[in-house]
Amino acid sequence: MAPAPTADLGIEPGRFDTGKMWTFENAPLAYFQQEYGFTPSSDWLKRVRLAALRLPNCSASFVSPNGLVMSNHHCAREGATAVTKPGEDLITNGFYAARPEDERKVPDLYVDQLVEIRDVTKEVTNAAAGADDAAAVAARDAKIEEIQARVGEELKLRCEATSLYHGGVYSLYCYKRYEDIRLVFVPEVQIAYFGGDQDNFTYPRYDLDVSFFRLYENGQPVKSDNYLPFSQGGAKEGDAVFVVGNPGSTSRLETVSQLEYKRDIQHPSTIAMLDSRSKILWDFMQKHPAQKPEIENDYFSLTNALKAYTGELKGLRTPELFARKVAFERNFKKAIAAKPALQAQYSMLWNEIADLRKQITKVSPALNALTQGGVLRSKTFGTALNLLQYAGAASSGQVPDSALATMKAEIIAAKINPEIDALVLAAQLQEAKDLLGASDPWVSRALSGRTPLEAARAIVTGSAVADSARRAALAGSPSSVINGADPAIQLMRAALPRLQQTYQQYSQLTAQEDVRTGKLAKALFEVYGSSIAPDATFTLRIADGVVKRYQYNGTEAPWFTTFYGMYDRSYSNPGRDEWALPARWKTPPAAFDLKTPLDLVSTNDIIGGNSGSPMIDRNGRVVGLIFDGNIESLPGDFIYDTEANRAVSVHSEAILEALRDMYGARRILDELTAPVR
Amino acid sequence: MAPAPTADLGIEPGRFDTGKMWTFENAPLAYFQQEYGFTPSSDWLKRVRLAALRLPNCSASFVSPNGLVMSNHHCAREGATAVTKPGEDLITNGFYAARPEDERKVPDLYVDQLVEIRDVTKEVTNAAAGADDAAAVAARDAKIEEIQARVGEELKLRCEATSLYHGGVYSLYCYKRYEDIRLVFVPEVQIAYFGGDQDNFTYPRYDLDVSFFRLYENGQPVKSDNYLPFSQGGAKEGDAVFVVGNPGSTSRLETVSQLEYKRDIQHPSTIAMLDSRSKILWDFMQKHPAQKPEIENDYFSLTNALKAYTGELKGLRTPELFARKVAFERNFKKAIAAKPALQAQYSMLWNEIADLRKQITKVSPALNALTQGGVLRSKTFGTALNLLQYAGAASSGQVPDSALATMKAEIIAAKINPEIDALVLAAQLQEAKDLLGASDPWVSRALSGRTPLEAARAIVTGSAVADSARRAALAGSPSSVINGADPAIQLMRAALPRLQQTYQQYSQLTAQEDVRTGKLAKALFEVYGSSIAPDATFTLRIADGVVKRYQYNGTEAPWFTTFYGMYDRSYSNPGRDEWALPARWKTPPAAFDLKTPLDLVSTNDIIGGNSGSPMIDRNGRVVGLIFDGNIESLPGDFIYDTEANRAVSVHSEAILEALRDMYGARRILDELTAPVR
Repeated sequence: MAPAPTADLGIEPGRFDTGKMWTFENAPLAYFQQEYGFTPSSDWLKRVRLAALRLPNCSASFVSPNGLVMSNHHCAREGATAVTKPGEDLITNGFYAARPEDERKVPDLYVDQLVEIRDVTKEVTNAAAGADDAAAVAARDAKIEEIQARVGEELKLRCEATSLYHGGVYSLYCYKRYEDIRLVFVPEVQIAYFGGDQDNFTYPRYDLDVSFFRLYENGQPVKSDNYLPFSQGGAKEGDAVFVVGNPGSTSRLETVSQLEYKRDIQHPSTIAMLDSRSKILWDFMQKHPAQKPEIENDYFSLTNALKAYTGELKGLRTPELFARKVAFERNFKKAIAAKPALQAQYSMLWNEIADLRKQITKVSPALNALTQGGVLRSKTFGTALNLLQYAGAASSGQVPDSALATMKAEIIAAKINPEIDALVLAAQLQEAKDLLGASDPWVSRALSGRTPLEAARAIVTGSAVADSARRAALAGSPSSVINGADPAIQLMRAALPRLQQTYQQYSQLTAQEDVRTGKLAKALFEVYGSSIAPDATFTLRIADGVVKRYQYNGTEAPWFTTFYGMYDRSYSNPGRDEWALPARWKTPPAAFDLKTPLDLVSTNDIIGGNSGSPMIDRNGRVVGLIFDGNIESLPGDFIYDTEANRAVSVHSEAILEALRDMYGARRILDELTAPVR
Repeated sequence: MAPAPTADLGIEPGRFDTGKMWTFENAPLAYFQQEYGFTPSSDWLKRVRLAALRLPNCSASFVSPNGLVMSNHHCAREGATAVTKPGEDLITNGFYAARPEDERKVPDLYVDQLVEIRDVTKEVTNAAAGADDAAAVAARDAKIEEIQARVGEELKLRCEATSLYHGGVYSLYCYKRYEDIRLVFVPEVQIAYFGGDQDNFTYPRYDLDVSFFRLYENGQPVKSDNYLPFSQGGAKEGDAVFVVGNPGSTSRLETVSQLEYKRDIQHPSTIAMLDSRSKILWDFMQKHPAQKPEIENDYFSLTNALKAYTGELKGLRTPELFARKVAFERNFKKAIAAKPALQAQYSMLWNEIADLRKQITKVSPALNALTQGGVLRSKTFGTALNLLQYAGAASSGQVPDSALATMKAEIIAAKINPEIDALVLAAQLQEAKDLLGASDPWVSRALSGRTPLEAARAIVTGSAVADSARRAALAGSPSSVINGADPAIQLMRAALPRLQQTYQQYSQLTAQEDVRTGKLAKALFEVYGSSIAPDATFTLRIADGVVKRYQYNGTEAPWFTTFYGMYDRSYSNPGRDEWALPARWKTPPAAFDLKTPLDLVSTNDIIGGNSGSPMIDRNGRVVGLIFDGNIESLPGDFIYDTEANRAVSVHSEAILEALRDMYGARRILDELTAPVR
């Protein structure tokens, strides 16, 4: 697809283009009142905040007064695996603790509850006021450490100073940590992750992506009135709903030149690589079906990344969407220009960042061509580089033996499939040729008059690196690594000085850019204050939205799906694992009502990290459980848009109906539906 | 969206970009063998051709030896309405003739069967050989008339000479016409047209869009062995399937300059008008819910057209798709250039057509600004123009009274909603201003310093035309039309000379273009012969394809849907008429199997007119019934693509299961499933 030009289409930015991930300390109460006729009381906010929880990578919430906690199945997958006993398969078959004593403690899992919030902006910024150098940064970091330790000690909590608005505000969040977490319920993975990687990031959707834990203290379930009771009946179309959780990270404040770089250079190149590598793996799996199981995970991680990048690029290439970013920047610049003090301090930043991006654009071809490592690049080359670095470290005599042993172990443990790796290397050499030109000394040496495929095959076949036994021998003899004639190692040795130099240039440029981005963030906060929401920081936020259908596929996507749809998608994909039903579900009990709402969509602003967030109504009742976004949500990293971007949740009724009539999980059902005290 | 540039991306055209609507006289048997390992015998082709039927606007087929005919419900809607008796509602409730004597004769309906095909190319072209003027056209048309009459008399059939490849070939198609057509079965419209206009042109889909008729001769059902028995079990993924029917019209042979005109000028302008007018109607319906029923049909016709044009434009704006057209033309030009005789005769045509399109581009603003009539333009203006033409005709004394009476009746019958019409006229005046400029004499007179909305309101309110009683009075007094001061009539009188002149220019240009398009078509046939399929002409074709899923919405669309999906879509859209289920379907009988395949998709090349076409397997057995295409099929007018373009059919098993377990239509079920003799 041809890149769309950057144009100011004369439109205005959306009021909430920067998002709706509001902090609890700055929840926009007046806006809630105006939009929904609803002002959450401070009690409401406090109860909701204390009911919300954070898992190491997900969100969760208390849903009963007895410490019952709800999250996603995909957030509980590791935990369920960890408590699986010999002969069991809790991932395949699910788990239900019918009695309290059946609940199983998950080792090493913890849950954090945000108990106290303090504004420490002044304290932090005063620590390094005026200065703008490494010493100032160190002073600031030291101050943060000091505050965290001091207040943590005072409150007996774990305190973390969180930089909001990229340093515009510092909020000290103090958490109570729970460390006795027991698994109560997970459904079968086929029901929780129905549609698998294929249906990931999509809607209409049919997933019961739910899990229940219970938190214990001193061997007893945690008792607390700060929990979210389940709604009776769930949400309806048009309802205002609030998502309370911990969105991980967004880049909504990037400048137009930074977004252009993503749109025109970075994403197209990443997508081309993901596409090429996933095709290599796909073809290999077709040719060698027996090896499919060991390849499939890599393949799905590539195709899922491909889906995510493609979706974001599609957004970047939508002129109407991009123009809103252009317009935002135009207005922001005007606001800066209107105040001489701000103008003097900040007005040059956009040009400086654009200039830095231009310089990065010049460095990036060599960086892309010479970088090694990861699933996108040849393991033979990558391991050859590791061998060189290991040999250098070993011969330097300055690296401790333990570190050397780790490096060596990693080299020996590398798994290289020569057939796949030759194809990956061929693609990589072709890319290097495209990026640097055929006459580039390194490219010309690597190809030596051969096609990329011929060269790659000769290198992989001729190198000891791709063979585990020969590689182990090499790792045992650092001098032979440095002085040997191995083709892969020789090519990496030739590349190394240039790679190091390029990487250094790149790092210097991005460091300079980071300083300016930080200043711009301060400028933004000076102009807009907390009227706009800060970028996501995997800390607690409340995002308002509305339950709402949207246009898709030439028609409308409904605002909810039903269990009927799950059966449709399963029976219409015979023989496909993604949509296979577990035995229990193939013959549902007569009482199980297929027309029960299963998943629903809403306009709430969410992103990775929000998985497991409760969705509540204005009464603070659970109406849904966030687990994904639709395909149109993928530009959410840079813009929040309500036209087609939707958060996808499990409907509260689906959870209740499944517990009641599919799993007979009476104990949990009663707990969720008990009258509120 | 910014227009995509025209680029030759260096790719080659697809082998079948021009389509797969093969004629029976030139079915590509060698290609079928190579692609599917299947060469239809001449008996197979003959039986299939004779089993295929053509309704006035649709396709159909014999599906039993006793004259039972299958088509779509949407092809039988008028017929079902026509045989509805007082107190009945066959559209809402469906119809099933439980006994032979219950079958109801549909008045004025006929069905044609293609019985004989003769190549008359030489005879037709010899009649006007060499010449290239009006006399030659007349001679050719006279020859066609003569052949049709002569062979029709000889065979006692209705013969039609069909120009294929825009005159490259003339095939004489002789039809047997059946005129005693009786309705046997239609389901409820809510099941046949489930999802209504919303789901039109989309997939996944859940429609039982089927009808059955029976053909009679001399009061008895037609007996014939040329019918298509139902498959046992239906199609499977990957199966080769053949669609036999009458595709209406395609423009796959348009030049790049003609497609550019559509992409950059015609479609964007049409879409903008459709969008503006549909919004006017939508807003009106929101403000006046009581008047919704009378507005809704117009609204849906606008939104459906909007969907179709938007889908085609999206295809035109997809650089990879457009580049295939560019590449096709590049190769075609090369082939012409390779032969001096062709080069001399044809090589100038592309430039000439491009030049004519440039001239048309200059004429089109005035034409668009001044044209009246249709749902996109003000009825006040349109009717004012009709009044002027009627008054002119009446005063000329040269138009017969009967014609004058018809003109007058149409004027009086016009229904004008002044509130809607003022908004339509305002949009139209804004467009005229944009197209011609504010200083254009007519625009400046129409606006007279007012905004388009002010002007439109004043014109509609001030004109007698918008009021039925005052309009009837005007129609009774032609001289007052011509000489009166009515603002709408005066503006139309001012526009008329220019409109006529512009229209004449436009017609001359398109006539010159038509001549060149015809020559290009001949050149195409000289280069490619029947190796490419001719554009659709609403005559019988056989299109090969494969049952195949496709990528959609970030995941895969399955190759078939089930009845479960219909219930999902209905229950997930409560209160919405489009997805409401008829009473019978709300509580399906226990025996009714919801996992039965309902609709399926395949890569067959179809277009409007194919509705009701049988889809058969290599054994000539019915596996589906074509009724629509998916949203990605909309660029099908200019290119055939198998990536995402899919034909949508009712699955044969859905028809059998519904007849068996939902409708208890045993008589028809037995007839469809009787062993083949």
